[in-house]
Amino acid sequence: MKPICLVIGAGAGIGGNTAHRFASEGYHLALCRRSNQEGLNNMVKSIKDKGGSASGHILNAVKDDCIEDVINTLESDIGAIEVIIFNLGAQIGDVSLKDLSYKQFELGWRMATFALFRTASTVFPLMEKRGKGTLIVTSSTASVRGNPKQHSHASAMGGRRMLCQSLNAEYAPKGIHIAHIIVDGAVDAPDTLGRMLGPKNFQKLKESKGMEHDGLMLPAKIADTYYHIAQQHRSVWTHELDMRSFSDSPWWNDNNNSYI
Amino acid sequence: MKPICLVIGAGAGIGGNTAHRFASEGYHLALCRRSNQEGLNNMVKSIKDKGGSASGHILNAVKDDCIEDVINTLESDIGAIEVIIFNLGAQIGDVSLKDLSYKQFELGWRMATFALFRTASTVFPLMEKRGKGTLIVTSSTASVRGNPKQHSHASAMGGRRMLCQSLNAEYAPKGIHIAHIIVDGAVDAPDTLGRMLGPKNFQKLKESKGMEHDGLMLPAKIADTYYHIAQQHRSVWTHELDMRSFSDSPWWNDNNNSYI
Amino acid sequence: MKPICLVIGAGAGIGGNTAHRFASEGYHLALCRRSNQEGLNNMVKSIKDKGGSASGHILNAVKDDCIEDVINTLESDIGAIEVIIFNLGAQIGDVSLKDLSYKQFELGWRMATFALFRTASTVFPLMEKRGKGTLIVTSSTASVRGNPKQHSHASAMGGRRMLCQSLNAEYAPKGIHIAHIIVDGAVDAPDTLGRMLGPKNFQKLKESKGMEHDGLMLPAKIADTYYHIAQQHRSVWTHELDMRSFSDSPWWNDNNNSYI
Amino acid sequence: MKPICLVIGAGAGIGGNTAHRFASEGYHLALCRRSNQEGLNNMVKSIKDKGGSASGHILNAVKDDCIEDVINTLESDIGAIEVIIFNLGAQIGDVSLKDLSYKQFELGWRMATFALFRTASTVFPLMEKRGKGTLIVTSSTASVRGNPKQHSHASAMGGRRMLCQSLNAEYAPKGIHIAHIIVDGAVDAPDTLGRMLGPKNFQKLKESKGMEHDGLMLPAKIADTYYHIAQQHRSVWTHELDMRSFSDSPWWNDNNNSYI
Repeated sequence: MKPICLVIGAGAGIGGNTAHRFASEGYHLALCRRSNQEGLNNMVKSIKDKGGSASGHILNAVKDDCIEDVINTLESDIGAIEVIIFNLGAQIGDVSLKDLSYKQFELGWRMATFALFRTASTVFPLMEKRGKGTLIVTSSTASVRGNPKQHSHASAMGGRRMLCQSLNAEYAPKGIHIAHIIVDGAVDAPDTLGRMLGPKNFQKLKESKGMEHDGLMLPAKIADTYYHIAQQHRSVWTHELDMRSFSDSPWWNDNNNSYI
Repeated sequence: MKPICLVIGAGAGIGGNTAHRFASEGYHLALCRRSNQEGLNNMVKSIKDKGGSASGHILNAVKDDCIEDVINTLESDIGAIEVIIFNLGAQIGDVSLKDLSYKQFELGWRMATFALFRTASTVFPLMEKRGKGTLIVTSSTASVRGNPKQHSHASAMGGRRMLCQSLNAEYAPKGIHIAHIIVDGAVDAPDTLGRMLGPKNFQKLKESKGMEHDGLMLPAKIADTYYHIAQQHRSVWTHELDMRSFSDSPWWNDNNNSYI
Repeated sequence: MKPICLVIGAGAGIGGNTAHRFASEGYHLALCRRSNQEGLNNMVKSIKDKGGSASGHILNAVKDDCIEDVINTLESDIGAIEVIIFNLGAQIGDVSLKDLSYKQFELGWRMATFALFRTASTVFPLMEKRGKGTLIVTSSTASVRGNPKQHSHASAMGGRRMLCQSLNAEYAPKGIHIAHIIVDGAVDAPDTLGRMLGPKNFQKLKESKGMEHDGLMLPAKIADTYYHIAQQHRSVWTHELDMRSFSDSPWWNDNNNSYI
Repeated sequence: MKPICLVIGAGAGIGGNTAHRFASEGYHLALCRRSNQEGLNNMVKSIKDKGGSASGHILNAVKDDCIEDVINTLESDIGAIEVIIFNLGAQIGDVSLKDLSYKQFELGWRMATFALFRTASTVFPLMEKRGKGTLIVTSSTASVRGNPKQHSHASAMGGRRMLCQSLNAEYAPKGIHIAHIIVDGAVDAPDTLGRMLGPKNFQKLKESKGMEHDGLMLPAKIADTYYHIAQQHRSVWTHELDMRSFSDSPWWNDNNNSYI
């Protein structure tokens, strides 16, 4: 029976690349994304084609019972969830206070903070019985500083970071490793940057100079660090780390990317 | 016409003491609390007895339109809100993850984060037209670290802190002063500590040794700093400061008070 | 007998303005600066002309025994030092690693970190016997983030900040208030900005638009906050606060001023 | 020609274990420690016995030219230094302000801050020419909070952390990876804990319950993370991470270990 790695937010960037990495190391990958059944099927197929094991699940993280049902079904039908990659973002772009509706503000919290709480509430009691488990949370610069017009994202991510700390304080001694990853730069992902540039320009940019020269983070390389963190011996757990491209400035030195 | 100082969370501790201080400096005090009409009336009367101006408003900050109505009524009937003391707490005591309901978790966010967002959304456009205004936010240790069994409070306060930063980043240049006060200790307040000890023991404790020897913060003295912050010249605004008793340890040195 | 307020770094900006403020509140001001006996004499005279009490002391903070001698002389000849404003900077401008000599790097530490340690070592035992005292330390953005070409300043200020924390942890319970002030912006001071622009252009700039519109901090207004901090009741002491102009961005949002 | 990994502070804990790990991955290990030529020879022999390459160098980091000479000799005689593990500590135990000499305070800075500056000053220009290099700095809880009686250690480590930031800001864009590792717990090392308990009790403790149950960090496992950080792709560099045992509390939650 393979241990399960559950990826909540399995798009083509960090989520998908992490999925491939964990699949190649022997995990069954349970992939969740909000929409795009075809993309999800393709990712499952792609993992299976390489000899891995995977299943796909459409999951709208703001709907009642959705997260809970996926976790409970996996545990009863497939096996024990050993690792969760919580990879939901809540970036809605720059919106000034006047233009930001109460509904949008609440949605940010439902995605970035409440969905994480629901995930932990459902799976930690199961992990606690087994005395082990790992929760790796993709987070962002907004978790440590609030930018103008980022009210929804900043408050949701600030809440996420403190929630990771309170979860860690209660569950690390019970054998559950919680890691809060500050992804402090733009990720080279077709779903995000690629969509913005269009596929042709995106490919051109990649060929012309190598993405990392522009400060873009290669998601397959982020996946390497996620995998390392998940394998750390319990006597040396990392709770928080930051990541960015060598050519980019850390958040405390610069503010080029107000979105991250 | 007196400028208005609106206190959201006008109990017998920081809220009430700050109200008295601002009243003595010439503000009309608009006092809001969730319940206890009699206590509210007494506070209004007490301010008036000292020659001040005050009005009382029962306000349940988690109800729709409640905050918005109070602000709009004050602005149309009484005058311009110059200062807001946002003093709502969201502490529910230690509750382990297993025992914490989704509803409780959400309630923490509605009190500590969403109510602040609603307040700023309603009043900042009015303040922006006048080119000035002050928002002082009582916050807590939980805004900078998450303790075990503090999931609701920590994530709500972490969201509050980042929201204060994003509001400051957008509105400070427009003349609105936002200050995030980390109250890093237990406050000597009859509503909180007094209720716990009972009135007789509370009085005895106060007489026997002076509260501050036990690390308790005198709320009338906190009010002095709130008033100072509200009067800072706009070329030297403070966005964040911490406060605690001389005999207490800062949050980074100690963890005696998991609740704060 | 007036209590003494000792200002180490009494130039025309924060130091001088704070001196005037404390003098007007009844302190004897002991003013120290590295050079410019005439400027020092003028400041002493200016305080006396307003009815205050002051003395001037040339003090090179990197020389052996210099700080210690001033403190001991004041205590034996004039009275008890109640407040120290430690206002020495260590900014040497942007110097890349290749061009930064070992001597310059060490000098930054001697000014910003070691001089503070010597000051505390000499005066805290005296304050401890009296059960009270205040040390307000002017610090800078560099104490919380390191910028490129700021190796000397950043490491010296980072050391200063942690020293303030360890001093606070040991001496706050003994009645000594230590405050670390993050001056997160350029100060409108003739010694610094004025020297750069020249007196004529400096005056012109001041008349034309009011300095604070350019993000400059008025030192007389900084002095108001220093005085407030020194008067805080011991049950509500602030250890750290930040300050900047309303029109400037906090260090976490921007990086226009690499020097601060 | 093997790339060089230089370990400054190659004792039996983090330094020695990291050395073995990098040696097994194909680096020539240049091992430096202050004293104990025999121990140094044994470590060199032990690496060679496993098929690795190593050399030993007695290095007193507070002496003039010592660090510089080792670096220059390695570069001219053996090859290019690709990785430096800067592993010098500066803990002298709890010493109250009254008992802490100026000399001790300065020594802390010379070990923890100045030696790092000298190392970077000497090696970064060489690495810059090659367009790559890695500096991993073992740091401690004291770099982010100052405890009582830790004046020397806290200010030296605070300076170290800000220096790592300024170095990173200037040299990351030139291809040099600087990582600041917050080792937030006690390390299971015969040189430190073992010396305290004595060899017999130390062995007994290890056999009886497994060290990590007591919150001790296994240095061989720390070495795994050091190696991972050194191998991160340059588009996803980590600048700062924390580490501790699952059974220990993070520094923001607890203060059991005032020394770290």
